[in-house]
Amino acid sequence: MSSEFGKNITLSVFGESHGEAIGCVINGLPAGVALDTDKINFEMARRAPGKDKTATPRLEKDLPEILSGVLNGVTTGAPLAMIIKNTNTKSGDYSNLMQVPRPSHSDYPAYVKYNGFNDIRGGGHFSGRLTAPIVFAGAVAKQILAQKGITVGAHIKSIAGICDDSFDMENVTAQELIRVSSLPFSIINKDVEERMRKAVEDARMDCDSVGGVIECAAVGLPVGLGANIFSTVEGHVASALFGVPAVKGVEFGAGFGIADLRGSQANDPYCIKDGSVFVKQNNNGGVLGGMTTAAPLIVRAAIKPTPSIAKEQESVNLQTMSEARLKIKGRHDPCIVPRAVPVIEAAVAFALLDLMM
Amino acid sequence: MSSEFGKNITLSVFGESHGEAIGCVINGLPAGVALDTDKINFEMARRAPGKDKTATPRLEKDLPEILSGVLNGVTTGAPLAMIIKNTNTKSGDYSNLMQVPRPSHSDYPAYVKYNGFNDIRGGGHFSGRLTAPIVFAGAVAKQILAQKGITVGAHIKSIAGICDDSFDMENVTAQELIRVSSLPFSIINKDVEERMRKAVEDARMDCDSVGGVIECAAVGLPVGLGANIFSTVEGHVASALFGVPAVKGVEFGAGFGIADLRGSQANDPYCIKDGSVFVKQNNNGGVLGGMTTAAPLIVRAAIKPTPSIAKEQESVNLQTMSEARLKIKGRHDPCIVPRAVPVIEAAVAFALLDLMM
Amino acid sequence: MSSEFGKNITLSVFGESHGEAIGCVINGLPAGVALDTDKINFEMARRAPGKDKTATPRLEKDLPEILSGVLNGVTTGAPLAMIIKNTNTKSGDYSNLMQVPRPSHSDYPAYVKYNGFNDIRGGGHFSGRLTAPIVFAGAVAKQILAQKGITVGAHIKSIAGICDDSFDMENVTAQELIRVSSLPFSIINKDVEERMRKAVEDARMDCDSVGGVIECAAVGLPVGLGANIFSTVEGHVASALFGVPAVKGVEFGAGFGIADLRGSQANDPYCIKDGSVFVKQNNNGGVLGGMTTAAPLIVRAAIKPTPSIAKEQESVNLQTMSEARLKIKGRHDPCIVPRAVPVIEAAVAFALLDLMM
Amino acid sequence: MSSEFGKNITLSVFGESHGEAIGCVINGLPAGVALDTDKINFEMARRAPGKDKTATPRLEKDLPEILSGVLNGVTTGAPLAMIIKNTNTKSGDYSNLMQVPRPSHSDYPAYVKYNGFNDIRGGGHFSGRLTAPIVFAGAVAKQILAQKGITVGAHIKSIAGICDDSFDMENVTAQELIRVSSLPFSIINKDVEERMRKAVEDARMDCDSVGGVIECAAVGLPVGLGANIFSTVEGHVASALFGVPAVKGVEFGAGFGIADLRGSQANDPYCIKDGSVFVKQNNNGGVLGGMTTAAPLIVRAAIKPTPSIAKEQESVNLQTMSEARLKIKGRHDPCIVPRAVPVIEAAVAFALLDLMM
Repeated sequence: MSSEFGKNITLSVFGESHGEAIGCVINGLPAGVALDTDKINFEMARRAPGKDKTATPRLEKDLPEILSGVLNGVTTGAPLAMIIKNTNTKSGDYSNLMQVPRPSHSDYPAYVKYNGFNDIRGGGHFSGRLTAPIVFAGAVAKQILAQKGITVGAHIKSIAGICDDSFDMENVTAQELIRVSSLPFSIINKDVEERMRKAVEDARMDCDSVGGVIECAAVGLPVGLGANIFSTVEGHVASALFGVPAVKGVEFGAGFGIADLRGSQANDPYCIKDGSVFVKQNNNGGVLGGMTTAAPLIVRAAIKPTPSIAKEQESVNLQTMSEARLKIKGRHDPCIVPRAVPVIEAAVAFALLDLMM
Repeated sequence: MSSEFGKNITLSVFGESHGEAIGCVINGLPAGVALDTDKINFEMARRAPGKDKTATPRLEKDLPEILSGVLNGVTTGAPLAMIIKNTNTKSGDYSNLMQVPRPSHSDYPAYVKYNGFNDIRGGGHFSGRLTAPIVFAGAVAKQILAQKGITVGAHIKSIAGICDDSFDMENVTAQELIRVSSLPFSIINKDVEERMRKAVEDARMDCDSVGGVIECAAVGLPVGLGANIFSTVEGHVASALFGVPAVKGVEFGAGFGIADLRGSQANDPYCIKDGSVFVKQNNNGGVLGGMTTAAPLIVRAAIKPTPSIAKEQESVNLQTMSEARLKIKGRHDPCIVPRAVPVIEAAVAFALLDLMM
Repeated sequence: MSSEFGKNITLSVFGESHGEAIGCVINGLPAGVALDTDKINFEMARRAPGKDKTATPRLEKDLPEILSGVLNGVTTGAPLAMIIKNTNTKSGDYSNLMQVPRPSHSDYPAYVKYNGFNDIRGGGHFSGRLTAPIVFAGAVAKQILAQKGITVGAHIKSIAGICDDSFDMENVTAQELIRVSSLPFSIINKDVEERMRKAVEDARMDCDSVGGVIECAAVGLPVGLGANIFSTVEGHVASALFGVPAVKGVEFGAGFGIADLRGSQANDPYCIKDGSVFVKQNNNGGVLGGMTTAAPLIVRAAIKPTPSIAKEQESVNLQTMSEARLKIKGRHDPCIVPRAVPVIEAAVAFALLDLMM
Repeated sequence: MSSEFGKNITLSVFGESHGEAIGCVINGLPAGVALDTDKINFEMARRAPGKDKTATPRLEKDLPEILSGVLNGVTTGAPLAMIIKNTNTKSGDYSNLMQVPRPSHSDYPAYVKYNGFNDIRGGGHFSGRLTAPIVFAGAVAKQILAQKGITVGAHIKSIAGICDDSFDMENVTAQELIRVSSLPFSIINKDVEERMRKAVEDARMDCDSVGGVIECAAVGLPVGLGANIFSTVEGHVASALFGVPAVKGVEFGAGFGIADLRGSQANDPYCIKDGSVFVKQNNNGGVLGGMTTAAPLIVRAAIKPTPSIAKEQESVNLQTMSEARLKIKGRHDPCIVPRAVPVIEAAVAFALLDLMM
């Protein structure tokens, strides 16, 4: 099994939370693309911890160093390799985990799969820190997509069950996507933001955590990307999104809600808009028969609550095969949803670019 | 783009609804597996139309002919090719679709992607009929999985918003999975079945259709299948499931519901059961860090209502680029959910077998 | 392991020599390509046995039946499936082979690999008959390449050590390639043909067989196909060619001969011809740094003598693990080189088309 | 196009000759393998320049830094990333190449393919320096193969047409492979070495270069690795070998020579040796039907003479599209064959390990 994604443009992610460095290699990029470093760093900063009360206090620069594939700021067509050195690591925090696996973490299956040889310091290769190279790759992908008139952006749809329903699945524009996804807390309805923040703070006070749903859109896509049966846009995007830790569900358009509708409600009637085919509603999320169609691509990812909570939990001791109790120490986000927004965008952008090439 | 799935065991599906034949090629099967033809035919019959009031009246035998890869009923290790000849086709029904695409169907993006050269008779390669080879491949996969002590089965979780919540995500057994998935209408709570059937019949009377949710489980899996970041069990299973027409969402365990829980509720505590590691609840659906863990794999697929409805709909004329109205003729299921149960099982079984090899 | 080739256009070959049918599935073909059936049948006939004294007397029609992916003679963009039914089979000839493997045949490793479950009748999936679907796929590929101005053709470079050195690696034209590859015995220098034929006939009289070398060229390719390090044109073409039974060596341009030259002799000087970059000689066979350059692609494949000879041979009995003697009965070509010419062309054409897409 | 190889164990190579660093990522390694750093460094040193009169005087440490995938000297099962920093680079030497491409180098097709955006300093991603990560990956692969009783080794078969024919294709042992491949100049017959060295020195004195052939063997392989039709051992090994710059031909066993034999000479008779199936000769190079059999794997690669020679050469000016003369400055090996031996071994070892997993 491997940490690789993509067919035409491939992304290979490597590194462990407390190892020398994390990074990625991207193969298949076109030559001649001028990369805007500020835009890359902006995306990296969106994901970086420590900026906000909802996030872990671990501070890192997370500045990507490009080792190859870029000359004078322009892609050469050769593989682009990037590393981020690990600096601020406290390995002492995780010593007990090999014996008593954390519930809802990878600890137990990783222990079995890798016979105890996997690096557990800070989660090792399973750490959420490994989403930093994904964000980097997504930032590169977004710049190439932008040159083709395609914009990818996401917002917080819900946190702790508090919903922001103000997203317009049919008529969302590139400008609106850029605006919302650039916010430190990417939400459309500012009134809802305070309630969400309070829910996160309440969870932190209770030594607990909360999850949420992120909604992502892509506008400007050509009609006919993807194909049916095993080459669907949905399958390709979903396989990238399930590579983001904590994602437990992926849906398109009306998603699970469409199952409760009648065909006459669910079907998206076509219309003519500015001389082009368009839809009157977007329950199919811009994908039909596995292919992009005339509407924005709409995809939602369910993010489970951070499994690392300070509350004591029930687990087992794998050495003694007896039940045990566990208190997780260390620094953890009570809610990773805001920081996950750029990760979801990145995964979607990279998957779409791969389909475009 | 291609109709191929899998890395170690690959499935290549071909054919058009009204062409000579549909079929598939499976590469990478182990040699020496005795295939039970009755079991394969039983699965094919579960998906076949015309058995039930909820289904289309088109009658077909759908008997698979194995062309290669099997000698005296035992796999040879060479590619297994199978065809199903198309016999009962009425091509006249679909003549108008090239100009006026059916809403929520592949017609429009296929027209753009294939420049009008795609076979539209009966949906062509986009027809739900192409799920027959998937069921065949799943039936083969299930027999190999069974030899490894693994059972895959599914049931109808909801139709038209009517839910059957009697599924036990933690303690479901192989016996129960086999029992339910063998029913003509695969439902656990028989009381709910009548309400579902009525909803389907009501929709038919209204020239409309309904959707639903199918819940699938796999028990007996080893711990540690899959891996994190782009090799996740979730991503692999989802990419197979989105290859099934009409699937608009895929979720694992508590799925989208987990986003509303707190970590202390969502986390699945470990316990010891019969000397082995087990879980007290299964919100993660048997997958952690992208790997199978000590609980049953639980995955749900949202099935949209059949887009082909007899009600008049709004569309556009692609030749004149003007708005148009459309009445779909022909024979169509008011609800494909019951027939989709074996297809979902097959896609899950094949994806899991691929991860096992 | 699988009988699949290609990344963008994929070819999946199936079938056994004495099974129901052999065939292939091609994924990723562009829609809208009018296929000339006569041209396909012409290529099939070139490979078919029984036309010439050098070939096996087994007579077959080998007429391909297209099951999907083509409508009214034009590709639809959906997978193209093709079968050739097996009719003239004499299974009785091969009964002893499971115990006493034929030298230089796949019998022994196949027996070990497939635990004796592989179909040995007529060689099963290892039969040279499986090159028929490759020729079919190559015939399709050649038509698409022709629309892009690319021509692939091959000739017999040597048989039994008798060489035809009249090939012009720098200035070969599409017309010459088409002419030579259309001959029943594809040779440039007709004087050499008689000596080759005599060598084949002598071998037949001696119950023996002979091999040879096939030289293949492609003209009209764009500059820059392929890439260096693991995406080379050479590696891709070679991996297709080694899929053709009996190929034991693949070389480009001057090939193994280049190893004996000095750099000043081996290097191909550039010149300007008709306003374009060209080469004064073609020792690199049209590939530099893994990429196509300004000269024709030149590749050669070494074909070993048919391993099935009527002479008695030394082998072992796998049941008794003792040494044994073997006399192969049945009908076999004393030289497969002439019939292998269209197979080599097909493999090269398909590999190049895959790189083009 | 990408610099990636492998299906089960994948190798992704990155970097440019004069960039920040070169390196690789290996995915799919088993967890729990203790890596011997000395053995890795020994292999790196074999390839490193400057040790011998036949090699370029550029001195580099080429010490690999492992960034991930190894903890306390043992593989974790996570991706293994490695970098080698570039230190000793003289970029001024190559300024003219964008306009006047070096004959037999990648310059011209790379210029066309990458629109002039590729990094040409020192050959960029096309530099022979990129073989260092391949040697690293091979060194890792060899250690894992050794644990399975498999040894890969190579020797210089010829340089400048001077041949060492003392290799025993049937009975070569692991000990002999290790001995020869550990020599600074990997040759079996020491008498031939002096003549080869003189030929290289003569070429250097003439501002010219020479090529050669490297012969590689693997012993201890299980029977049945690989498969026929597009999954052949030959095709897989060849696609790795053609990824090594300067390789223009690949052959197995008797290779091109087998084409001149009769079947009765070419066929390798089976015998019983120490109770196991073995062969009396090895013209098939240990591969039949695409699968490993009872004999050592024997593969040969033709290495063209170093294209960078000090002699003046004919080329063209791509800006003015006129003919031009070129004198290459800088430091270049008059013969890369001795340094290429560990690279060929590495490519073969990695390809075989991939087939084993």
